[in-house]
Amino acid sequence: MKRVDWNALDENARERLLQRPTRALSVEVRASVRAILEDVSLRGDTALRVLTEYHDGVRLDALEVEADEFATAEETVPAELRAAIAEAAARIEAFHRAGMPKPYLLDTAPGMRCERVLRPISPVGLYVPAGSAPLPSTALMLVIPAMLAGCPEIVLCTPPRKDGSADPAVLVAARIAPNIRVFKLGGAQAIAAMSFGSESVPRCDKLFGPGNAWVDEAKRQASQRSDGPAIDMPAGPSEVLVIADAGADPAFVAADLLSQAEHGPDSQVFLLSDSEELLDSVARRVDVQLADLPRREIAARALESSRLIRVRDIAEAIAIGNRYAPEHLILAVREPRAWLDAVTSAGTVFMGDWTPESLGDYCSGSNHVLPTGGAARAWSGLSVSSFTKSLTVQTASEAGIRRIGPCAVTLADAEGLQAHALAVRLRLAALA
Amino acid sequence: MKRVDWNALDENARERLLQRPTRALSVEVRASVRAILEDVSLRGDTALRVLTEYHDGVRLDALEVEADEFATAEETVPAELRAAIAEAAARIEAFHRAGMPKPYLLDTAPGMRCERVLRPISPVGLYVPAGSAPLPSTALMLVIPAMLAGCPEIVLCTPPRKDGSADPAVLVAARIAPNIRVFKLGGAQAIAAMSFGSESVPRCDKLFGPGNAWVDEAKRQASQRSDGPAIDMPAGPSEVLVIADAGADPAFVAADLLSQAEHGPDSQVFLLSDSEELLDSVARRVDVQLADLPRREIAARALESSRLIRVRDIAEAIAIGNRYAPEHLILAVREPRAWLDAVTSAGTVFMGDWTPESLGDYCSGSNHVLPTGGAARAWSGLSVSSFTKSLTVQTASEAGIRRIGPCAVTLADAEGLQAHALAVRLRLAALA
Repeated sequence: MKRVDWNALDENARERLLQRPTRALSVEVRASVRAILEDVSLRGDTALRVLTEYHDGVRLDALEVEADEFATAEETVPAELRAAIAEAAARIEAFHRAGMPKPYLLDTAPGMRCERVLRPISPVGLYVPAGSAPLPSTALMLVIPAMLAGCPEIVLCTPPRKDGSADPAVLVAARIAPNIRVFKLGGAQAIAAMSFGSESVPRCDKLFGPGNAWVDEAKRQASQRSDGPAIDMPAGPSEVLVIADAGADPAFVAADLLSQAEHGPDSQVFLLSDSEELLDSVARRVDVQLADLPRREIAARALESSRLIRVRDIAEAIAIGNRYAPEHLILAVREPRAWLDAVTSAGTVFMGDWTPESLGDYCSGSNHVLPTGGAARAWSGLSVSSFTKSLTVQTASEAGIRRIGPCAVTLADAEGLQAHALAVRLRLAALA
Repeated sequence: MKRVDWNALDENARERLLQRPTRALSVEVRASVRAILEDVSLRGDTALRVLTEYHDGVRLDALEVEADEFATAEETVPAELRAAIAEAAARIEAFHRAGMPKPYLLDTAPGMRCERVLRPISPVGLYVPAGSAPLPSTALMLVIPAMLAGCPEIVLCTPPRKDGSADPAVLVAARIAPNIRVFKLGGAQAIAAMSFGSESVPRCDKLFGPGNAWVDEAKRQASQRSDGPAIDMPAGPSEVLVIADAGADPAFVAADLLSQAEHGPDSQVFLLSDSEELLDSVARRVDVQLADLPRREIAARALESSRLIRVRDIAEAIAIGNRYAPEHLILAVREPRAWLDAVTSAGTVFMGDWTPESLGDYCSGSNHVLPTGGAARAWSGLSVSSFTKSLTVQTASEAGIRRIGPCAVTLADAEGLQAHALAVRLRLAALA
C-alpha cells in the first residue's frame, strides 16, 4: 500500500488524496440502462424475460418465487447458517425496533392541536445483489426495517442463478417477513420492474438496497423521472477509514482493511495513524494476509487506490475523517469514546480493538446499508424511518382559530395572499 | 370550475384526471440552468454579480446582508407584523422541538453495544423565494428546524429587491437564528452558490426550500452531481385536495380552494364531495370570492386545471386522495377523526371546518414545506430530522466479540468473504 505524509501535502494534493475513485460510468452504461428502463416500462414481463435470459443466462417462466421454492430453500440451507441468520436477525430486529420513529402531538395553543402520525411506505422494493456472492445479510438489513415499519407490501428482487432458482440463503433471510414477495430479477431490469411495475411485479413507491454500477444508475435514472420512485440514498463503492494509534494491533487493522478491500476493485481503504511503526507493521501484515485470501485479486486492485496516511496526531486524523465522511469509520485507538463527539460525518463508527467492521456487516444489530461517496455529510444509514413517512395533522377548534387566526391574517396580508387571509376572516366572522 | 363524476369515468380517464399538470420545463430552461451552475462553479462571486444584475436588475457590491441592514429591517417592519412573526415562530418552535429525533442505545448482546447518535448537517443552505411576494413565513419554516437541529452554519439566500436590499420581513424572520448568514441571491444562481460555494458564500451539504421552476431545476441538477449537495425533497407546484360532506360550509371551502389557487397558475385544486348540492354552492362561492381577489388572474388560471369531483361516498374520496397523495388534504367532514386512520398519503391533513390551510401555512406550528407532485407517497414534510444525520456507533467488548463473533464468521463464510471472517477469527484467536 502506498504511503503519504498528510503534513507534507499542499491543499490541492490533500483534496486529490481524499477524492473518490469515480465509477467509470461510460456513456454506454447510461444509455443501456436508459434503454432497459424504457423496454420494461413499455413491455413489462416480456421485456423482463428477454433481459433475464440475456444477462443472467436463464429463461424463466415464473418470475416470482413460489411456496415450494421457499420450502426447498429451508431444507437446502445448512442448519448452522440458518441459525446464524436467525441469530443476526434477532439482534437487527431488537436494535431497529428500539429506534423506531414515534407519533406525537402538541397543543400549540388552546384549541390548536398539531400531531405527527406515521404511515409505512408501500409497496417498497428491495434489491439484494448476488454478483460475486449472494448476500443473505443484505436481505436481513432491508427486510427487517421494512417489516418493523409495517409495510403491507414488501417486494424483493434478487438475480436468478443459472438453474433458474434464487439463492436459498437469501430466501431464508427474506422470509423473516412472512408477507414478502420475491422475484428472480437482477440488474437494471429488476430496478425497472419495481419502478414501473409489470404484469408480475408491483410498482413500488421507494427502492432500497445496494448494487453494482448498473443497479445504481438504474435507481438514479428511475428516481429522476416525474413518475419515478424515491430511493434510499445515492450509492457508490464501499469504503472504510481506519484511525489507529500506536497501541493498535497491526494484524487486526490489516484484516479490517482487507475486509473492505475484498468487496470490490473499486472499494476504497484508508489507514490514518500518528505512528510510523504501526503503519509499517500494518503494511507488512496486509501483504501476508492478502496472499491467503480467495479474493486476493479483487482486494489487491482495491489496495492500489488506497493509502496509508501519516498524521500529526489523532485530532488531525478525526478532522480528515470528517472531511472524507467515510461509510465505515474504525477508531482503533486507546480511548475511542473520548473522540466520538468530534466525529461529525460517517455512516457508522466501530469503537476500539474488538469491534471489526464484520460484526456490523453481519450481526451486531446495526444496519449495513450506509451512505457512501461522502454522502454521510448529509445522509444517514437505513433505519425504520427510511421505510416510514410522517404526516402532520392539524385540528383547530372554534377557540383555536379565534386565538391564532389573527396571526395568520397579519402574515397573509404581509405576503399579499388575500385568499389565505379570507379563509380565516370568513371563519372569524362566522364566530363573531 | 369543471365538474366530473368519478363513477362515470373509466380507469384511463381517472388516471388522466389525477395527473399533475407537468411544469413545462423547456429544453432552454434546463440548458440555461446548467449554464448558470457551470458559470458559478467556475467564476464564483463574479458570476453571481453578473447573473444578479441580469436577472434581478441590481448591481450588488456586497452579496451578504450586514449588521446595519438587519438593524434597518427591524425598524422598517411594522410592530404588528413583527409580533405576528414572533408569535408564529414560538408555535413552530414548540411543535418542532417536541418532535426532535433522539439518540438511543441498546446492548444487543452482553458486551455488544449499538447506539444511534445525532449530528446536525452543516452548512445547510436555505432558499426563500420572493417572486410575486416575499415569504417571511417560509423563512420561519426553514430557519427554525435548522436552529433546533443545532446546525452551526446556516446560510440563507433570498432575491434582492431593485434597490439592492433584502425584504425586511424575511430578514426579521431569518434572524430567529442568531448565527444565520443571509445572501441577496435568487434563482438558479443562489442554488449554484450554495451548492459549490464561492468567495462569499459557503458551500452547503444540503439545500432546503421551495422555489420556481428554475430553482427546482437547479436543485435537481446540483443534487445529481457527484460532488453536489443533498436536497430536502423533489419540488413542484403547490396543491390541495379537499374532501367535503353535505354539512360543510360552502364559503369556507371556496376560500380554501382559492387560497391554494392564488399561489400560482400551476397550482392544482380538487374538491371531492358526495353531495351534489355542496359542489354546486361551492362553485358559486368560488366565482363570487374570486372577483374580489387581487390575485384573481393567477387563481383563475389555476382553477382551469382544477376540478370538482362527485364521489359515491367519503370512503371513495379518501381512496382517491391516497392515490393522488396531495401536499395538503382538508377533511371538511363531520367526523374527520373517524377517517384519519384511512389516510395513507398526504403531506399534511387539516381536520374539520375550523382548520383552514392558511393556519398551517403560517402559524399552527406545523411545517409548510411539504412533498408535492405525489411525493407524499414516499416523502415527509420538513422537520428537525431533515436537518440532522444519524450515525450508528458499535462497541464490542472482548466478551461481546466472543459472544457474537462466531455468527459473523458463519455468515462471512457463506458469502465467500474470507477477509471479513479473518478479522473476527484473528480476534477470537487472540482471546483464546
